[in-house]
Amino acid sequence: MARLDERQIIAIFQKAFANKKFVSEDVEQFRAGKHIIVVKTDTLVSRTDVPPRMKARDIARKSIVACISDFASKGALPSHCVISVSLPRSYPRSKIVELARGFRDASREFGFEILGGDTNEAHDLVISVAMFGIAQKITPRRGARDGDAIIVTGPFGRTSAGLAVALHGKKADTKFARTVKNATYHAAPKLKFGVTASRYMTSAMDSSDGLSTTLVEMSTQSKKRFVITKIPMDVQLQHFADSNKMDVVDLVFNGGEEYEIVATVPQRYLSRVKQIAKKSGTSLIEIGHVQKGAGVFLQDRKIAITDKGWSHFRN
Amino acid sequence: MARLDERQIIAIFQKAFANKKFVSEDVEQFRAGKHIIVVKTDTLVSRTDVPPRMKARDIARKSIVACISDFASKGALPSHCVISVSLPRSYPRSKIVELARGFRDASREFGFEILGGDTNEAHDLVISVAMFGIAQKITPRRGARDGDAIIVTGPFGRTSAGLAVALHGKKADTKFARTVKNATYHAAPKLKFGVTASRYMTSAMDSSDGLSTTLVEMSTQSKKRFVITKIPMDVQLQHFADSNKMDVVDLVFNGGEEYEIVATVPQRYLSRVKQIAKKSGTSLIEIGHVQKGAGVFLQDRKIAITDKGWSHFRN
Repeated sequence: MARLDERQIIAIFQKAFANKKFVSEDVEQFRAGKHIIVVKTDTLVSRTDVPPRMKARDIARKSIVACISDFASKGALPSHCVISVSLPRSYPRSKIVELARGFRDASREFGFEILGGDTNEAHDLVISVAMFGIAQKITPRRGARDGDAIIVTGPFGRTSAGLAVALHGKKADTKFARTVKNATYHAAPKLKFGVTASRYMTSAMDSSDGLSTTLVEMSTQSKKRFVITKIPMDVQLQHFADSNKMDVVDLVFNGGEEYEIVATVPQRYLSRVKQIAKKSGTSLIEIGHVQKGAGVFLQDRKIAITDKGWSHFRN
Repeated sequence: MARLDERQIIAIFQKAFANKKFVSEDVEQFRAGKHIIVVKTDTLVSRTDVPPRMKARDIARKSIVACISDFASKGALPSHCVISVSLPRSYPRSKIVELARGFRDASREFGFEILGGDTNEAHDLVISVAMFGIAQKITPRRGARDGDAIIVTGPFGRTSAGLAVALHGKKADTKFARTVKNATYHAAPKLKFGVTASRYMTSAMDSSDGLSTTLVEMSTQSKKRFVITKIPMDVQLQHFADSNKMDVVDLVFNGGEEYEIVATVPQRYLSRVKQIAKKSGTSLIEIGHVQKGAGVFLQDRKIAITDKGWSHFRN
């Protein structure tokens, strides 16, 4: 959307609706008696959201993963969904079958039921998923407290590296190439960990818009300074970046499309959260801590991290 | 979707999901404690679902009306929705503002809250609405009983006539032209009537796929014969059809895009349902009755109505 960027468009909707709700949380919610119904809608458009050479089955899975990751970050278990599929006129039957299987497999993988949906014709393949669940409470983006540890559920930068390998012929050793391509085409949202560990988090957010965007949003909403002391990455990523003349900080902070949880956890709960991560096979990385103040800073490098970028330390 | 029609595509999804749920009811539902959460998703694609010259504000409203009409037919009150908007790169700011206002106005008109949504870029304008509500029970498509009256909430054929006038220069007198163009660009789903009268209906369905499709679906699901004794149309429609050499039965039964309720009502509740219609300003037309047997038949003309067509009476 060249004439207006996404934020400007969102601002138009927020203004018309006279609220700040349009995309300011990972999920939406409303009450049904004692229950909170958690809702997430996410639309995948083939032209902008699907890496080249992704199979139809993985495209279907990706459209689901986007919602699952948001549920995971809020500690909410998804239970049902409806799917709206718009297909180009020439979309072949074999790929429709693969899409359907992708949805079915994802519903088994993450344990929700597909209630129904609708089909339409469009220029692009467009998949809108509306996912629902019932929760007692959700972990907000706002809520980080002084002294909290900042954790993430996995290394960052893999997805960008995977794209660079798969599409731009960047060099990587075989094992690392497999790891990063798998991250790109078959993301693994941390649903079990998120749902179990949620109660110990003061704030949390899905990281798929990129680590810098996520940290800046959480810091802004919480009105706290986020100090990053450790860059969450595979040891091989530095080597990969160096040998391909890429910036490793850029890969990690601004790559995006990592379906990880970023959360803040009071120090007294940190060991418990680490235990939960271990039990659910989730690699947990403590990347920093929360302070009084504002902004996101990379401590060792004296760098202020901004949304999808960074600048030299100014204060 | 030329290579496969919509039914074939839906069949693929049904097979993969191993259920018959994909689009066999007007809404989906799941339980939250004592409550039934009613869900409807509907996607509007500008290229196929928007008549030429429709304003952005009315396009937004139309995407909402499609869901509201389904809620109305099920007797369920919508309470919340999320909206996913995909826009072409060149879509102008002024039209985005009009879309946003259209959503806002529709939320006031029908009394639901917009929780949030997301925005994307696509070739077509694509609007996916997921609408939610809480209900005690919903009126199913299946459930018509012998002797029930078949009712509809308004005359049919107006939308097709309106398109014929607005786009193809068909002749109509000024007042009728205004009525039918209004039906085309500003449909009025019968939410209040539907919610209030629902308890007296044995089966009901939204008619937007066309009256013939709706009657055939209800008859099939209920395993009953639907005998149509009255064609629900304005007196001016016959004149309009004659003077433009159009088939009035085709206009009424196969036009589609009428957001009316088709329902079956036991004879003993008919006067009560008529009272409710009068109170809510809804024009109610009794068009026939339910019998043992199968199929939909137009009694006077000895015609069997099939899905989007008809054939001569064969039995």
